[in-house]
Amino acid sequence: MTTDMSADLAIYTRRESEARSYCRSFPTSFVKAQGSELTDASGRTYIDFLAGCSSLNYGHNDPDMKAALIEHLNADGITHGLDMHSGAKADFLTAFEDIVLKPRDMDYKVMMTGPTGTNAVEAAMKLARKITGRRNIIAFTNGFHGMTMGALSCTGNAGKRAGAGGGPLCGTTHMPFEGAFGDGMDSLKIIEEMLSNPSSGVDAPAAFIIEPVQGEGGLNAASPEFMRGIAKLAKDHGALFIVDDIQAGCGRTGTFFSFEEMGIKPDLIPMAKSFSGMGLPFAALLIKPEHDIWGPAEHNGTFRGNTHAFVTARVALEKFWKDDTFQKEIATKAEMLREALEQIADNVPGARLKGRGMMRGVDVGNGDLAGEICARAFEKGLIIETSGAHDEVVKVLAPLTTPEATFAKGLDILKEAARDVTATTKYAAE
Amino acid sequence: MTTDMSADLAIYTRRESEARSYCRSFPTSFVKAQGSELTDASGRTYIDFLAGCSSLNYGHNDPDMKAALIEHLNADGITHGLDMHSGAKADFLTAFEDIVLKPRDMDYKVMMTGPTGTNAVEAAMKLARKITGRRNIIAFTNGFHGMTMGALSCTGNAGKRAGAGGGPLCGTTHMPFEGAFGDGMDSLKIIEEMLSNPSSGVDAPAAFIIEPVQGEGGLNAASPEFMRGIAKLAKDHGALFIVDDIQAGCGRTGTFFSFEEMGIKPDLIPMAKSFSGMGLPFAALLIKPEHDIWGPAEHNGTFRGNTHAFVTARVALEKFWKDDTFQKEIATKAEMLREALEQIADNVPGARLKGRGMMRGVDVGNGDLAGEICARAFEKGLIIETSGAHDEVVKVLAPLTTPEATFAKGLDILKEAARDVTATTKYAAE
Amino acid sequence: MTTDMSADLAIYTRRESEARSYCRSFPTSFVKAQGSELTDASGRTYIDFLAGCSSLNYGHNDPDMKAALIEHLNADGITHGLDMHSGAKADFLTAFEDIVLKPRDMDYKVMMTGPTGTNAVEAAMKLARKITGRRNIIAFTNGFHGMTMGALSCTGNAGKRAGAGGGPLCGTTHMPFEGAFGDGMDSLKIIEEMLSNPSSGVDAPAAFIIEPVQGEGGLNAASPEFMRGIAKLAKDHGALFIVDDIQAGCGRTGTFFSFEEMGIKPDLIPMAKSFSGMGLPFAALLIKPEHDIWGPAEHNGTFRGNTHAFVTARVALEKFWKDDTFQKEIATKAEMLREALEQIADNVPGARLKGRGMMRGVDVGNGDLAGEICARAFEKGLIIETSGAHDEVVKVLAPLTTPEATFAKGLDILKEAARDVTATTKYAAE
Amino acid sequence: MTTDMSADLAIYTRRESEARSYCRSFPTSFVKAQGSELTDASGRTYIDFLAGCSSLNYGHNDPDMKAALIEHLNADGITHGLDMHSGAKADFLTAFEDIVLKPRDMDYKVMMTGPTGTNAVEAAMKLARKITGRRNIIAFTNGFHGMTMGALSCTGNAGKRAGAGGGPLCGTTHMPFEGAFGDGMDSLKIIEEMLSNPSSGVDAPAAFIIEPVQGEGGLNAASPEFMRGIAKLAKDHGALFIVDDIQAGCGRTGTFFSFEEMGIKPDLIPMAKSFSGMGLPFAALLIKPEHDIWGPAEHNGTFRGNTHAFVTARVALEKFWKDDTFQKEIATKAEMLREALEQIADNVPGARLKGRGMMRGVDVGNGDLAGEICARAFEKGLIIETSGAHDEVVKVLAPLTTPEATFAKGLDILKEAARDVTATTKYAAE
Repeated sequence: MTTDMSADLAIYTRRESEARSYCRSFPTSFVKAQGSELTDASGRTYIDFLAGCSSLNYGHNDPDMKAALIEHLNADGITHGLDMHSGAKADFLTAFEDIVLKPRDMDYKVMMTGPTGTNAVEAAMKLARKITGRRNIIAFTNGFHGMTMGALSCTGNAGKRAGAGGGPLCGTTHMPFEGAFGDGMDSLKIIEEMLSNPSSGVDAPAAFIIEPVQGEGGLNAASPEFMRGIAKLAKDHGALFIVDDIQAGCGRTGTFFSFEEMGIKPDLIPMAKSFSGMGLPFAALLIKPEHDIWGPAEHNGTFRGNTHAFVTARVALEKFWKDDTFQKEIATKAEMLREALEQIADNVPGARLKGRGMMRGVDVGNGDLAGEICARAFEKGLIIETSGAHDEVVKVLAPLTTPEATFAKGLDILKEAARDVTATTKYAAE
Repeated sequence: MTTDMSADLAIYTRRESEARSYCRSFPTSFVKAQGSELTDASGRTYIDFLAGCSSLNYGHNDPDMKAALIEHLNADGITHGLDMHSGAKADFLTAFEDIVLKPRDMDYKVMMTGPTGTNAVEAAMKLARKITGRRNIIAFTNGFHGMTMGALSCTGNAGKRAGAGGGPLCGTTHMPFEGAFGDGMDSLKIIEEMLSNPSSGVDAPAAFIIEPVQGEGGLNAASPEFMRGIAKLAKDHGALFIVDDIQAGCGRTGTFFSFEEMGIKPDLIPMAKSFSGMGLPFAALLIKPEHDIWGPAEHNGTFRGNTHAFVTARVALEKFWKDDTFQKEIATKAEMLREALEQIADNVPGARLKGRGMMRGVDVGNGDLAGEICARAFEKGLIIETSGAHDEVVKVLAPLTTPEATFAKGLDILKEAARDVTATTKYAAE
Repeated sequence: MTTDMSADLAIYTRRESEARSYCRSFPTSFVKAQGSELTDASGRTYIDFLAGCSSLNYGHNDPDMKAALIEHLNADGITHGLDMHSGAKADFLTAFEDIVLKPRDMDYKVMMTGPTGTNAVEAAMKLARKITGRRNIIAFTNGFHGMTMGALSCTGNAGKRAGAGGGPLCGTTHMPFEGAFGDGMDSLKIIEEMLSNPSSGVDAPAAFIIEPVQGEGGLNAASPEFMRGIAKLAKDHGALFIVDDIQAGCGRTGTFFSFEEMGIKPDLIPMAKSFSGMGLPFAALLIKPEHDIWGPAEHNGTFRGNTHAFVTARVALEKFWKDDTFQKEIATKAEMLREALEQIADNVPGARLKGRGMMRGVDVGNGDLAGEICARAFEKGLIIETSGAHDEVVKVLAPLTTPEATFAKGLDILKEAARDVTATTKYAAE
Repeated sequence: MTTDMSADLAIYTRRESEARSYCRSFPTSFVKAQGSELTDASGRTYIDFLAGCSSLNYGHNDPDMKAALIEHLNADGITHGLDMHSGAKADFLTAFEDIVLKPRDMDYKVMMTGPTGTNAVEAAMKLARKITGRRNIIAFTNGFHGMTMGALSCTGNAGKRAGAGGGPLCGTTHMPFEGAFGDGMDSLKIIEEMLSNPSSGVDAPAAFIIEPVQGEGGLNAASPEFMRGIAKLAKDHGALFIVDDIQAGCGRTGTFFSFEEMGIKPDLIPMAKSFSGMGLPFAALLIKPEHDIWGPAEHNGTFRGNTHAFVTARVALEKFWKDDTFQKEIATKAEMLREALEQIADNVPGARLKGRGMMRGVDVGNGDLAGEICARAFEKGLIIETSGAHDEVVKVLAPLTTPEATFAKGLDILKEAARDVTATTKYAAE
């Protein structure tokens, strides 16, 4: 294995596309990862507050998942099986039924889409249109759903949309997320007015697609009232209700689904990121049985159903979700996180907390400041990134399994970094 | 691990979406796979002539790749690293540069897209539109490029397109592939006429996207002349030339790239399927350096760059492509395949051979017959599928590493199956 | 000339498309029209409060326009001249420059589009996209801009949009008109928030298109502040500002342009309806000189520039707009109208006045009631129609030239009709 | 009336949009027109071989139409009546039924669309999509159907399409017109192959739209076999058959409808141009009764049904189409035309005749030559224009009523102009 870092950097410059991004924020080469920490080629260890953008909720290389995967490999278990039946898939589905669905009184079919969130979103959009015979899908300001043309048409970010190069991002309407226009404006009422006015120009929707907490859009957390309001609007207007739990799901907010205490039953639920447990590419679309009108292979894909991921995903469910121990641990750390962020916010004029559970951050008012805090944190051994339309939110997405001591240490680094940066004249004056 | 097959089937019916497909053709549950063979829960072993739709060109669980992956796991190598630098990625890029690019005098940047072919295609479409400022992308009859909205707009299959439920499959023009209209009609001339006539209604193209051998569309193999013709048309009309080598690449036709002996230098090359070596989800877009105008993260994705796949992909390159031994073996087996298929074709009135290299099949004239042959083969222990607009082609996609004896045995089963089915009155009379 | 009414009706049923509409509300056959009155085949005379949906602002068959047209015909003046130069066109342009543009300090080029409002709107949309290189056009709730695919994409009405049969009504975003969401919600702020948020999902606009008074959408009259606000938003965001004055222009609101006292200078102004003076098909797009980047015939059409209309349009300008006499008359009648409508509103619980100038109506709360009032008025000899998303507004669009006595008589009929209908139990109880 | 030509030109430069076009080819100002001749402000008379692009098939200011229109005006007949019943409309419909439909055994409803061809085309497209529930409309190379977004999506011309400024010209597929790819390529077969291949990527069509003779596209005349072939394809594939007879209809090719001797019954027939008889803006869509599923006003428009045009259109039908006298005259002149064009073609290497009936021209091989011939003809007192994708066809569209002596004189001028221009070295050498 290569350990010479300068050679590494040369090969990247020479051969990896300019589209690469995180490596620009964290200019080192990582070679090892365990739990909540990453180690680079020089042997330096970093605490991970990014967690693969919430793909590593259970940490890096969880020993049980790793052991199960090695066992599977040693036994020549199926690696790639298209969507043929395999023992590993049956075991995963059974565990998912027993551990996730049944206790929550949820009845869903699992559609193995291509192994990315964007693919699960595309499948949801297609299915909603197919079911309703309508084209318009209502997405939300600051929403992020993926980079393929369908999902991108639901994504708000102008820079990402520009990447389409003028290709057809049509068939969607963007409505304000809760609080998008400030406290005085009721987003639900705005949407309701637009939909109930037959001359609004907003075509009858096939679906609403919403993230309960907007991961890329600035950690905006919808209230249960808002989510129920959208669910009701969807029902009243004959539309499907798609809850994209790709980033907020799998325990990130404290429960398996981020919305499970909101009193809603989405029609379609795209899942990805931490769904495999171990960070392997894996996505699925959960479908209420009455909506499962797909024909065989009507939406297909070579890598739908990643068998290695079935193995690790099953272990994740069995290890973390059989009882409420893990949820309680998340709640404890979420409180630690909230307190630390409040301390940071107290030192930045106008700053405010965003998000909920272990999906929180602090909006420091502008992207430059947030970026400098993250850069300073990295120098101090913490991997952390920004979020938001203006990259104005310092976002903490630590593994949910992070030991309390490590978590506290990471939070200390973050506080120090914020202090260092805000102490400089430049932002203090603002 | 579950081994009771009926329990397996129940969980699938109960919990997996109706979109599932291959499991319907092969109604058993697979639990183990090695080389060219799959074993089901009852212990029965099948020869694999499907190879994950060409995702398993090096066979199942190649021992060297497996060993490298287990070593990586044991060492707590990065599993999920977003697109941060990692030793595994550098090693893969270096191997790709040394073993693939340099010997072929090819200069390309590697864009790690989401880990599916459709994602690499979407990235290529977006980039071509961005570069040219044009919207229209010319795809081909019987082309298959993926299921997300952008890639689907380039895909010809009406059933797949119907899955979009009326969503906007626009911005593309479909032109005849070589031979699409029979021998008397020159597809190149048709396309040239449409593009050179300023009143044709076909807008100036951003790109052409073509598969050198159409994997899903019936194993139609483009001639070097046709490919060069399209390359020239693209150049003459200011369009990019995208060669989708997802299914035909990685040795399937005999060389690493299916087009490398055709005298063309595509602008963009989406790769996936066997690119990881071991069937892990992994895709990339190869980009001529002058076209790499992406901004950081302009096309991003959580699972871009699957680190496990970097490990196995590197081993695949080092093991199979350092010299021409593997290519020679493929050539030998390709000839075995051609001969066997000719024998089958001789027994079916009107049948004809399709494809080239180890990507061949026999067009038996209709989908019912082809389907029955495949079903009969499965009964006899062979996994094989159909292809084509009418599913009229019995398609052989065996692992390229299949031992000759096993390959011969598989071909014998196929011949028997064809004989059995064609011997019945029903088709003989046609 | 046919005078047998039943024969008339038979031929319509037999030969005219089901798309016909006004004839259903006014089931008689008209044979003569002068000033503010129409006469049917049975000799009955009706006062016209519809005025060709504001196409007859100067009344029917104005004697001076008629005389000029007959003189033109007798002299074998050009009838159809494509867009060749003709004396009649020069005279019209000269009069338009002298009487309309110069006194208002307006500098615009006149583009003769096809002779319908929808065509002028299509030209404006195309030009705005061409100038800005952007696609998105922002239209407003309850806006109405025409029935061809471009204009229809800007039109809000769901029934009209359904007429597209699923054709692509894309490339537009619909935003709330002033007051669309009630008093508490500031539409300008909503639009500004959506445009200034780079993650809103609303693409940078090529243009805004707005009617100062929404003729079909319920006589919603924008305030000068709102119009200036949109003008500023357009400027700030690099978009063109298109003011569709097709229905509200040509004196309908009291001044030649409905917006001329608002302190705005639109970039593009589609004109039609009363622009010919006499109800002849004629439309034009007024273009700020710096935006006139059309190539010759880049937007063309057989009937662009109706020469008969040039003749009558010139007379209309010379007769009515050389001084402020006509404007004063309009103001007097507008006040009569307002008073009469207030009396009606006083008798209908919850009713409220809409519109301004001679473009006013009363919102009676529902379409059934409004429709019955209009039907009852017709029985009494008055031609009048409804407007609004629910057809809930009784709309008065009398010729501006209506003699005061006739106008008063018409208003009396309307008041009686409203009284008759609201006296019935059915609506009184609501 | 202005007669000073330089003043005319100044006002145009100052006030008319750069989109103006014909006035550039014919830089004078016309003030009078009778029959086949136009007179400019200087008193010079020109023979008209352009006829308002076939809008003046019955010549300028036909005395009977003129008289009827003056009578209508003097009697205060309806000028603008929206789509209310009027005597003039009934009379027109009755005449159309008696003189056009019945003798041809045609049963169609008449939809009064906005008064332009493009509007009739838009209505046809919308109706076809509404009826079939499909979106794709198949148009043809070199087809021209109008400038509004729907019609423009069916128009082939790249320059016109560029006018859309990147707006969505989608939902159509362009297929080769008869002979588009030369003699060796059967366009019907190409289209059939694309439609019968379920993986062609061409979605099932809502309609085909075709001009029997392509007026703007180079006077390509479809054979009866081709038209029947398209009619059959439409029927076989569940699509509507739209025949755009806007330019070729109303006697231009020798019969009232250009296709009436072809053995086809189109589902929808857009009509415009000479449909009013006198060059007034007027268009209609003829609809087979079973397809007339419009709701009231589902496609509407202020100027649908131009009452003046009803008057003149009725006279045109009564005067020219009650017996076959006019058709015989057309046939005689068409033969004169053909002979004259052959003489021209004989003098231009590679030239060939195009079109049929009185809709003919000569393809001289390039647009520069054709343009010079037309310019030279204008100097000699003849108004004539080019056609074709490269403007390579000198197109004769004389009024069908042109007296033989005048017609001969015009043809002589054209022959002389061609001779003059081709005598120069520049083109002779090619």
